Amino acid sequence: MSQLVVQKYGGSSLADADRIRHVARRIARERAAGADLCVVVSAMGDTTDHLLDLAARITDEPDPREMDLLLATGEHMSGTLVAMALQAIGVPAISLTGAQAGIRTDSTHGRARIANVDPIRVRDEIAAGKVVIVAGFQGATDESHRTGEVTTLGRGGSDTTAVALAARLQADRCEIYTDVEGIFTTDPRVVPEARLIPVIGYEEMLELAHQGAQVMQTRAVELGWVNGVVIAVRSTFSDHPGTLIQEADPMEIRDKVRGLALDRKVAKVTLVGVPDRPGIARAVFDPLAEAGVNIDLIVQNVGHAGATDLSFTVPDVDLAKARRLLDPIVRELGFADMTTDSAVAKVSVIGAGIGNTPGYAARMFGALADAGVNIEMISTSEIRITCIIAEDQVEDAARALHAAFRLEEPETTDSGARLAS
Amino acid sequence: MSQLVVQKYGGSSLADADRIRHVARRIARERAAGADLCVVVSAMGDTTDHLLDLAARITDEPDPREMDLLLATGEHMSGTLVAMALQAIGVPAISLTGAQAGIRTDSTHGRARIANVDPIRVRDEIAAGKVVIVAGFQGATDESHRTGEVTTLGRGGSDTTAVALAARLQADRCEIYTDVEGIFTTDPRVVPEARLIPVIGYEEMLELAHQGAQVMQTRAVELGWVNGVVIAVRSTFSDHPGTLIQEADPMEIRDKVRGLALDRKVAKVTLVGVPDRPGIARAVFDPLAEAGVNIDLIVQNVGHAGATDLSFTVPDVDLAKARRLLDPIVRELGFADMTTDSAVAKVSVIGAGIGNTPGYAARMFGALADAGVNIEMISTSEIRITCIIAEDQVEDAARALHAAFRLEEPETTDSGARLAS
Repeated sequence: MSQLVVQKYGGSSLADADRIRHVARRIARERAAGADLCVVVSAMGDTTDHLLDLAARITDEPDPREMDLLLATGEHMSGTLVAMALQAIGVPAISLTGAQAGIRTDSTHGRARIANVDPIRVRDEIAAGKVVIVAGFQGATDESHRTGEVTTLGRGGSDTTAVALAARLQADRCEIYTDVEGIFTTDPRVVPEARLIPVIGYEEMLELAHQGAQVMQTRAVELGWVNGVVIAVRSTFSDHPGTLIQEADPMEIRDKVRGLALDRKVAKVTLVGVPDRPGIARAVFDPLAEAGVNIDLIVQNVGHAGATDLSFTVPDVDLAKARRLLDPIVRELGFADMTTDSAVAKVSVIGAGIGNTPGYAARMFGALADAGVNIEMISTSEIRITCIIAEDQVEDAARALHAAFRLEEPETTDSGARLAS
Repeated sequence: MSQLVVQKYGGSSLADADRIRHVARRIARERAAGADLCVVVSAMGDTTDHLLDLAARITDEPDPREMDLLLATGEHMSGTLVAMALQAIGVPAISLTGAQAGIRTDSTHGRARIANVDPIRVRDEIAAGKVVIVAGFQGATDESHRTGEVTTLGRGGSDTTAVALAARLQADRCEIYTDVEGIFTTDPRVVPEARLIPVIGYEEMLELAHQGAQVMQTRAVELGWVNGVVIAVRSTFSDHPGTLIQEADPMEIRDKVRGLALDRKVAKVTLVGVPDRPGIARAVFDPLAEAGVNIDLIVQNVGHAGATDLSFTVPDVDLAKARRLLDPIVRELGFADMTTDSAVAKVSVIGAGIGNTPGYAARMFGALADAGVNIEMISTSEIRITCIIAEDQVEDAARALHAAFRLEEPETTDSGARLAS
């Protein structure tokens, strides 16, 4: 029986007719090798930006429902073009909208969650010998009306579509094609010695992505984890096997720093002289949560003389909104001051178990000190140690940490060595 | 009870953000006057050409099903943008795809026929106080799968969507907005004296459109005729009442030349020395029909000495194909010769009853003779007299005929005089 493979191609892999033809040849080669294929596509190159711009010229506050219907056209376009390119080289193919592919979502326009996948049409078309192209990033609500409402899944939506289909179809493989060769120990543009990671656990990948690695969105990784879908992250433009994201073998990967995440797009907020009493944290964070400001690290040290300092990070773009929301609270609750700094960056070392193992934190702090990098905030989890530092020192910090944890060296486990060779 | 109005805006009326905002204000004004509105939109300006070009860069022979899914995105885009523009000025609005609006079609991709309109969602949204925007030119098949296949209706599709919805919703008015003020007695770019026709019958409009007038497609006119939908053709950019297409009052419009149609995009084929025996016409026209070549006028005169000449017109663009198909037939059946001429044009005068009324044909031929225009072929129907002439004489012919039938003069019936004033 032939293997069932779910592939996903990102926007840069489909940016023009030449690249679409290249993707079609790649799919055709996989099919010639005997696989059945379900291929999820993102919108071509800058199509989504173009559509956002069209809407922006009409209104500053587009209705999320109309926006979804508008944005979903981007993946319809790329899907039909990939199907045509396959047909042009003799491969039977059909493109399906998210709704046709049975992607059912809730009705939260702009960031809908997948409620169910009902892939009867996908299965039928595969059984009829076709490569099935599915418009990623979108679904439809399941309504009493004959045709539901078109929804989009938000950031990383096409990855999520691919992993959800792979789970529901019980695919043998799920491959995310992008313009880099896989997941690296850190950003190769910053640290040239950065090394491709052959195999990584879901949890480590989640922390890497959450702390700033751009390749995979956390949401698709979570979905893969929950459903046990092994995800390969590979390049559209090479035959490198890329990175496998899968359940970690505890024996194999414990106590290793696997990667280093960098995030420049953060800002720091410090509330000075916060009264040390119950209810303060809620008073601060509830209004931010209601306004959709995503709080990342929160650090509060023990207080002195009934007061303490409370620091946290928010995305750069939300800093002004956070200040506006917090100003009255600072006055009302009698804090001494609020300071903010958007010229900070976040560096994190990630590896299962390292947060609770002595030595890793010390080595990280030592490496940063040797590189002359001052640490402004520290936060740890079981698999992560994060420092907030000055933004203009992020490259120095990255190089120092990459060297200190010897991330350029191939890993010594069997599977790692084999896949990295 | 408020009036229900179906409006349709064409691509040039929606070419950019400014025009979309203009259309939104126009809709808002109608709504403020108390009307419920269902608005059908075409794709913006050159969107359809852009999509065709995208496909052409991938393949010369795009699959019609994929092409439909691709082209349908054009009207999704304009629909969402018009809805957003309405919301931005405080008018509740929602855009629906053809499928969501209940436009059910057969499965003839690229030129689907509307099988049924099930406007439950349109009615619900109007009842909820919204202006409903419907993506024109498209529908969906009614399949056992939850979501049918997306189809497009072919040329004039959005006009057809509007008339079909007006019929099914029993709308009080159906208005087709375009970039000209209505239907003119002939092309005003050729004859500056051309006059706007205030009221015209369905049949006359059909002949005008069929013989080359570009404003309305015959298909939407036919649908209006069958369903008794009065269609107003108006300009998006003025408040002129435009032209009403409706059932003709026989007393009022009999024996009048109503308009003059010009068509340069025709070519003439003459088969010389055709044996005068049964079956010849079928042998000639069957292969052309099978190849999708649209035959227009056919003229065959009585024969002499067992042979005759057979002439007909085809669209310019199909001439090469027609020659290729006919060459072997000419040889096989022993015709003396085949001549073709693409430098011809078609001029038609149209008016209910004129084809069977003495005097009109004579006046037409006389006017052409006075203008020095040679007539190459003649064909008449009950409401039309058509001459094929040299293409470079079409403007002279148009001016001569417009003057000969005094088309620049307002019509003398009450309704005509009132509307034209």
